[in-house]
Amino acid sequence: MEKLVLLRHGESVWNQENRFTGWTDVDLTEAGRQQAVHAGQLLKANGYAFDLGFTSVLKRAIKTLNIALEEMDQLWVPVQKSWRLNERFYGALQGLNKAETAVQYGDEQVQQWRRDPHAHPPAITPDDPRFPGHDLRYQHLTNRELPLTENLAETMARVMPFWTEKIMGALRRNQKVIVCAHGNSLRALVQYIDHLSDEEVTNLDIPTGVPLVYELDDNLDRIRHYYLQ
Amino acid sequence: MEKLVLLRHGESVWNQENRFTGWTDVDLTEAGRQQAVHAGQLLKANGYAFDLGFTSVLKRAIKTLNIALEEMDQLWVPVQKSWRLNERFYGALQGLNKAETAVQYGDEQVQQWRRDPHAHPPAITPDDPRFPGHDLRYQHLTNRELPLTENLAETMARVMPFWTEKIMGALRRNQKVIVCAHGNSLRALVQYIDHLSDEEVTNLDIPTGVPLVYELDDNLDRIRHYYLQ
Repeated sequence: MEKLVLLRHGESVWNQENRFTGWTDVDLTEAGRQQAVHAGQLLKANGYAFDLGFTSVLKRAIKTLNIALEEMDQLWVPVQKSWRLNERFYGALQGLNKAETAVQYGDEQVQQWRRDPHAHPPAITPDDPRFPGHDLRYQHLTNRELPLTENLAETMARVMPFWTEKIMGALRRNQKVIVCAHGNSLRALVQYIDHLSDEEVTNLDIPTGVPLVYELDDNLDRIRHYYLQ
Repeated sequence: MEKLVLLRHGESVWNQENRFTGWTDVDLTEAGRQQAVHAGQLLKANGYAFDLGFTSVLKRAIKTLNIALEEMDQLWVPVQKSWRLNERFYGALQGLNKAETAVQYGDEQVQQWRRDPHAHPPAITPDDPRFPGHDLRYQHLTNRELPLTENLAETMARVMPFWTEKIMGALRRNQKVIVCAHGNSLRALVQYIDHLSDEEVTNLDIPTGVPLVYELDDNLDRIRHYYLQ
């Protein structure tokens, strides 16, 4: 049996300010830090030990993982960071307040952007300061990989190669793995493991800072899953 | 021209208590944390950007690097952790107070253990709780690689494969590299780059928390080196 732990990053400054964050690299709040400490304490108390960690290239996820590993006294565990585990890229919505956006575009439109797997939020243009092509950390991405906006299906599509190559690869080598990422990149993993429909997965909300444990059989099919509380 | 930055971890709890540390995984002091913050500020103010970081599997080095990268807003930089960059393994001296050790064994003996590249401190046995074979992070090491004691020459010998394979490999790919490690593992790198004799290198003390910059030519020979202050 393989064990996989999924962890959504703790509260960020823009979670608190109710703004669309996406790839914006905002920090954890103090409450977010405390969620990460608590996640680490739960994992430690339940005897978890990891061989490998995966996270995004966004500091709210990297720090959540580092804080949790430090709390477990396992800061030495190798960690791989990938843009493929980033949050969904929210296009021109990034930075906007969610309530104001609802007033401007209407609740129904905002709900559609958030929940319809094929709906694109308004795109940015490459001269927008929010375009990832301006950021050193994305210098190795192709033009095709650099998003101007993403619908949920596109987020899932760029997460999946990382899941199959890196995460499944590690699980097949019997490595104990923790993935610390974001609401939508974690949804992609859960959809795959749990064979969820698009509708089921968009209604799934993984709470921040609570370790979600998957016990998997040799085919990496789910035996059971549960939150550590 | 390639740039390589070497950084010795900030002050640790056992630096402060004047104890032989070696592979014991002691934490930074608050002063050590502040040294790491300051190192990151210096690197940021001087416009440094890294493609890759290397560190040991000991938290005082991992945290120093994480803190410095966070201060530079480059926490997304990939980091590889390796036991080969660990501090020298100090055998049965690990945990002992340096002043008390000098009283017990004599100053001359302690100086010889510290400075003679071929002098071995007293060895531990594999049933000693300090034996790295008991620690998960070293589970992939062969018996031959798991130390009972190390002289300086042996420390250098296990650092060098990492230097030639990983660090030189990255520099040859024109990657900008930071190595955050320990007094003796950094000495090994400096001895190689600067063609130092055993005597020259054992008299070399790299200060904690101060970035040491090497500018290297295409053969990875030194053009110049300096501390960022």
